[in-house]
Amino acid sequence: MKRITLLGSTGSIGTQTLEVLRSNPDKFQLGAMSFGTNVDLGAKQANEFKPSVICTGDQTAADQLRGKLHYQAEILFGLDGLTEVAVSEADMLVNAVMGRVGLEPTLKAIESGIDVAIANKETLVTAGHLVTEAAEKQGVSLLPVDSEHSAIYQCLHGNVDKEVSQLILTASGGSFRDYKRSDLENVTVDQALNHPNWSMGAKITIDSASMMNKGLEVIEAKWLFNMSYDKISVIQHRESIVHSMVEYVDGSVLAHMGTPDMKVPIQYALSHPERLALQGGQRLKLWEVGKLHFEEMDYERFRLLKLAFDAGRAGGTAPTVLNAANEAAVDLFLNRKISFLDIETIVERALNDHQTSQNPPLEEIIEVDRSVRSAVLADLT
Amino acid sequence: MKRITLLGSTGSIGTQTLEVLRSNPDKFQLGAMSFGTNVDLGAKQANEFKPSVICTGDQTAADQLRGKLHYQAEILFGLDGLTEVAVSEADMLVNAVMGRVGLEPTLKAIESGIDVAIANKETLVTAGHLVTEAAEKQGVSLLPVDSEHSAIYQCLHGNVDKEVSQLILTASGGSFRDYKRSDLENVTVDQALNHPNWSMGAKITIDSASMMNKGLEVIEAKWLFNMSYDKISVIQHRESIVHSMVEYVDGSVLAHMGTPDMKVPIQYALSHPERLALQGGQRLKLWEVGKLHFEEMDYERFRLLKLAFDAGRAGGTAPTVLNAANEAAVDLFLNRKISFLDIETIVERALNDHQTSQNPPLEEIIEVDRSVRSAVLADLT
Repeated sequence: MKRITLLGSTGSIGTQTLEVLRSNPDKFQLGAMSFGTNVDLGAKQANEFKPSVICTGDQTAADQLRGKLHYQAEILFGLDGLTEVAVSEADMLVNAVMGRVGLEPTLKAIESGIDVAIANKETLVTAGHLVTEAAEKQGVSLLPVDSEHSAIYQCLHGNVDKEVSQLILTASGGSFRDYKRSDLENVTVDQALNHPNWSMGAKITIDSASMMNKGLEVIEAKWLFNMSYDKISVIQHRESIVHSMVEYVDGSVLAHMGTPDMKVPIQYALSHPERLALQGGQRLKLWEVGKLHFEEMDYERFRLLKLAFDAGRAGGTAPTVLNAANEAAVDLFLNRKISFLDIETIVERALNDHQTSQNPPLEEIIEVDRSVRSAVLADLT
Repeated sequence: MKRITLLGSTGSIGTQTLEVLRSNPDKFQLGAMSFGTNVDLGAKQANEFKPSVICTGDQTAADQLRGKLHYQAEILFGLDGLTEVAVSEADMLVNAVMGRVGLEPTLKAIESGIDVAIANKETLVTAGHLVTEAAEKQGVSLLPVDSEHSAIYQCLHGNVDKEVSQLILTASGGSFRDYKRSDLENVTVDQALNHPNWSMGAKITIDSASMMNKGLEVIEAKWLFNMSYDKISVIQHRESIVHSMVEYVDGSVLAHMGTPDMKVPIQYALSHPERLALQGGQRLKLWEVGKLHFEEMDYERFRLLKLAFDAGRAGGTAPTVLNAANEAAVDLFLNRKISFLDIETIVERALNDHQTSQNPPLEEIIEVDRSVRSAVLADLT
C-alpha cells in the first residue's frame, strides 16, 4: 500500500489522480491532500478518501470545509499549510498544483525523503537546479506525470543515458495550430481554451496555444533527464498519439503512444516500477486513427518556444523570469486584460530587461519571481 | 572483442552483418563464415575478414574458393560442414542462412553454449519448441535480427512480461499491398520481387508479397517472446517506419521507429546490451516522412497470414508443414513453375493433408519437412 499526498486535488490532474486511486484501493491510500477554494468538490473528495490532513487555499475555504466534513481531519490553509501538508508522512507526493507556488512544498517533501510525482512543471522550470540537486542528495525519485515526460521516461527505461542522442517532445500545436501569426491578433480567451486533443486546466491550455507549454516542457526535460538543450528537440504532431520519443545513437527511435488520457502517465508515476491495468481507459486503435502527421516545428510562428530554449540555455535565473512573466501574462489574458500576442511580448520584454545570474539560491529565485510579476503588472498600468 | 560466426555471408543479411563488422573492427572479429555458391563474393569477404574456418554450399565451390584465398583457412562444405562451422569457437553465431536448413546448425551452436543472433526465422517456425528449449537449458541468448522482433525486443527491454498485453507486428503489405485479390492472378515474379520499402533476398521478398513473411514472424514472435497467439497481432503500416510495437496493460504502447535499414537491428543483436553509434546510417526525420499510415489487417485478402496463425495455434508439426510447403512453393514460383496464388493453394492443401502431432522430436520434424516438400513437387507433375 502506497501512502499518497496529493497537492491540487480539485484540478484536472488532481481529479484524475483520485480516479486512479479509486480504481486501485488495494494499492494506494490518500494520506493528505490540498486544494484551493473549490470547497464543494474538495469536501466531496475528502469525505470519499478520508485523508487525515487537508490544506485549503485560504482560511475562508478552511472554515467552509470544516462544516462539510463527515469525519475527523486536521485542516490547514495557505502557503504555510501547503508546506506542512507536503511533509505529511507519505511514500509519494503528487504535486499537481498550478504554477510556481508548487516549488517550496516540493523542496520540503524532497528534504523529508518523499518521492515526488511532478505534474507541476513550473517548479522545475523556475528552480530545476535546486530541485534536482535536493533529490539527488536525498536519494528520492522524481517521477514525471506530464504525458511527454512519462513517455520519455518509459522510452529510456532499461537503456543507458550515454546512448541517447535526442529526446524528441511532440507538440500538438494547441488551439491555434492552423492559424498564421497574422490570424492570432484578435483571438479570444474562449478560442484559446478550446484545445483539440486534451482536456486540461485553463493555464496549461493557454500555454499550449502559445506553445509556451512545450517550452516549459523542454526545460523540465532538461532537468528530469539531465540532458543538454542540444539533445532536446520538438516536433509537431497533431494527433497527440505519439506522446514523445527518444532517439538512440544507433538510429533507433523509441516512441510512447496511446490515446490522450492523462490517467496513464499519472498511474505510471504512482505504480512505478510496476504497471497496473488501466480501468476504464481507451486502448489505442491505430487502424482507427489511420494517419499520424509530423511537421517540423516553426520557431518563427511559435516564438515563445524559441524564447524558452534561449532562456533554458542562458540558465540561472533566466527560466525563472520566463516562467514568472508567462504566469503573470497568462493570468492577465485569462482575465481579458491583454491580447493573446501580448503574452509573447511581455515574456520577451521581461527576459530582455533581466540580468541573468547563475546558480541562484532559493531566496533569489523567489525574489526574481516576485519582482518580474510586479513589473508585468506595473507595465500594464 | 566479440568473436562472430556468420552463416550465410553472401546474402542480404550476411553482407550487411559484415558492414557492421567493418565499421567496428575494435568490437567484432569474424572467426568463421559460411556461404552457398557465390564464390567470387565469398572469397572477397574471406580475404578481407580472414575467418579461420569457411564452409561453402558444395565441394565445387570449396575447390574454387581454395584457389582464390590469399591466406590459410580451413575449408569445409555441405550440411556437415555447416554444422561444424556452427560450433567453431565463438561468442555469437549470426544465423543468416535462408530456409529451414538453418535448424541443425542453430541447435548445435546452442548446445555448444554459443549465443545466437537469429535472422533465419524458418528455424524458429519449423522447430521453435526445440530451439527455445535448448536455449533455456544451455542458458544462451537468442537475439532477434528481424527488424520487427528487434523492435519488440527493444520495446520490452526493462519491462515485465506479465505486464504486456499485446505484441503488435507491423506489415508494409509487400509488393502487392494495393492489389485486390482478383489483381493477383497474373502477377509475375519480377513484380513480386519489387518490394516498396526493403531491399532483401528473393525468398523473403516473395514471402512479403504473399504476407507469409508476417505469418512466419508471428510464429517467430511466439517463440522468441514466449507469448500466446492471442497476444500477437498484425497491423498494416505502409511506410515501414514503425518497426513493431508492444502494448502494455496500462494502455501504453511502446514503438520502435527508424528508417528501413537492416544494419540497425543487426548491429543491436551483435552489440547487445550495448548500443553502438550507427556508421553511415540515415537518421529518421519524421517531419520529412510527414505521415504514417495504419490499416487493419485484411485476413481474407492475405489468407496466408491467417493460415500461419492457424498453423501456429495448432502447434506441433503444423508450423513445420506451413514452412516446408511455403519454401517449396516459393521456389517453384521463383522458377516460374506456378502462379503467385498457387503458393497459397499449395500451403493450404499441405496443411489440410497433414495430421498434426504434438511435441515432435527433431527426427520427426526433419521427416515431415522432407515429405511435405516431396508431396508439393509430386502434386506438380
